[in-house]
Amino acid sequence: MIKTIAHPNIALVKYWGKRNAELNLPAVGSISVTLDKLKSETEISFIDANEDIVYFNGEIATVKETIKFTNFINLFRNISRSNNFVKINTVNNFPTSAGLASSASGFAALTLAASTLFGLEKNFQELSQLARLGSGSASRSLFGGFAEWHKGKKDNGSDCFAEQIADENHFKLKVIVAVTSREKKKISSRNGMVNSAMTSPYYHQFVNTSEHDLAKMREAIIEKDFELMAKVTMQSTIKMHSVMMTTNPPLFYWNQSTYAIIETLHQLIEEKYPVFYTIDAGPQVKIFTIPSYEEEIIKRININQIEEIIVCNLGKGAEIIKELH
Amino acid sequence: MIKTIAHPNIALVKYWGKRNAELNLPAVGSISVTLDKLKSETEISFIDANEDIVYFNGEIATVKETIKFTNFINLFRNISRSNNFVKINTVNNFPTSAGLASSASGFAALTLAASTLFGLEKNFQELSQLARLGSGSASRSLFGGFAEWHKGKKDNGSDCFAEQIADENHFKLKVIVAVTSREKKKISSRNGMVNSAMTSPYYHQFVNTSEHDLAKMREAIIEKDFELMAKVTMQSTIKMHSVMMTTNPPLFYWNQSTYAIIETLHQLIEEKYPVFYTIDAGPQVKIFTIPSYEEEIIKRININQIEEIIVCNLGKGAEIIKELH
Repeated sequence: MIKTIAHPNIALVKYWGKRNAELNLPAVGSISVTLDKLKSETEISFIDANEDIVYFNGEIATVKETIKFTNFINLFRNISRSNNFVKINTVNNFPTSAGLASSASGFAALTLAASTLFGLEKNFQELSQLARLGSGSASRSLFGGFAEWHKGKKDNGSDCFAEQIADENHFKLKVIVAVTSREKKKISSRNGMVNSAMTSPYYHQFVNTSEHDLAKMREAIIEKDFELMAKVTMQSTIKMHSVMMTTNPPLFYWNQSTYAIIETLHQLIEEKYPVFYTIDAGPQVKIFTIPSYEEEIIKRININQIEEIIVCNLGKGAEIIKELH
Repeated sequence: MIKTIAHPNIALVKYWGKRNAELNLPAVGSISVTLDKLKSETEISFIDANEDIVYFNGEIATVKETIKFTNFINLFRNISRSNNFVKINTVNNFPTSAGLASSASGFAALTLAASTLFGLEKNFQELSQLARLGSGSASRSLFGGFAEWHKGKKDNGSDCFAEQIADENHFKLKVIVAVTSREKKKISSRNGMVNSAMTSPYYHQFVNTSEHDLAKMREAIIEKDFELMAKVTMQSTIKMHSVMMTTNPPLFYWNQSTYAIIETLHQLIEEKYPVFYTIDAGPQVKIFTIPSYEEEIIKRININQIEEIIVCNLGKGAEIIKELH
């Protein structure tokens, strides 16, 4: 039995759209931070059975979910030439499919667990290529601190992997996750991004400007330049949401509380607070600041519409926390 | 003394950005509807004085405002070879500089009034070229019903004018104006659109896709195709706001009430209500529907955050309502 843990990550330079759907190769590179407080815990073991058994957040998984997991485990069976079936038990300590990157942490934890169970000898960069096939952003959650997922150029995806830019101790940031709704989103990121690529008039320009954003963000991270990081993150966020909203049919992932928080944060930025935000394919707002400003910012944004505030530091990469043979 | 009236107009296909700032030539064509309920009333007369006197909403205008009016009246003095100074008294029955197109109705009323006072013999298409120099969207407010402002191609702007597509009786629409804030906007459209053209990564694509939107909108108006009108209007709106929000520094003209209404309208659209919306450079939402649905839609969107609801029909063009010599 192998038990692993992995944390979700929040992209500073956004990923939206694929260059190859089958191999899950992204149209753009992306850079993220991994969070410490939210986590996915995954147990996997071989079982004497005719099929995989999957428990998801304490309940037996639906048929659709089980097929997704089985397809993913087939990768590991193929590489290790194994016919063994497995039991998987995976639990998130935070809302699932609600724009909090649960698939990133989930598939990162599962990738590390399954590769260990099946005896694959791969480094984290290689594991990121497997994790990618479960969920694109999972490739980044294998790493702590700041990670970049390279889009690569090759058709077979061999140059599409993630790696660490700097670890969780390099630049002390606080990430205040403002949860405005725990509801599952109506349109999955997977389907949404295919429609965006086909129909948004801004999609190609989102892709074209991404290399510039990635270069600026690497610079901001290495130089610990909060202001540059703020500027690039917010522009990348709004560029992505503009692509989403101009998709046909339109993808509006915000709700009115999301926008209320955006309004407050723009006010704080005008007042010269060290703060910026990003929003993913869901209504939650992820607010970045430096430690000494955490409390004051929470006071300012703590309005009625927020369901929960989760304050994170930058987190570690995926880890094995138990291994029994 | 000449007294005129003109109504603001709301663009279905949006105008944002100029191809020539001095001549106020737009980078894109635009199509709008003129509203009946909101209005600007303007009185103008010759005075025996050394300078123009301007009253704006019942008060003596500021120096900055007076200069703007004087510069505009100089056009009429130049064309008519006159040296006469004027007294202007212009009043809006609705919030000014708050995204309700007060400059459109104001300059349309003033253009008609001044051209009459100075004895210019020009048709409305020609007047639209003068009105444009006061405020771009004023060119459309000279016409009732549906109007198109052509961007033209010539450097001197001689092919940049507005004209009517269909009058106010052609297609009976209700326009529910939801006022969420009466505050003046922080950044004027005039300055905002210059920054957008220089800095938004999506600006050129906004411009490139406008011809397609204009063609579809003409078709929708002529065929009275509500669904097509809805689709093109909402996409044009979001394309414009995406350009605004990705401008550096960013232009966020919405507020949380704006977004709350957007959310409700998306819900109504999902429920198959005949409804769509547009938003200009301000936080007000203009909701379009057909007469029989007016009340039900107001009931659904009438939340606490709305300051005022103004229900309009399509309105007439600019008119002379009093003429004394």
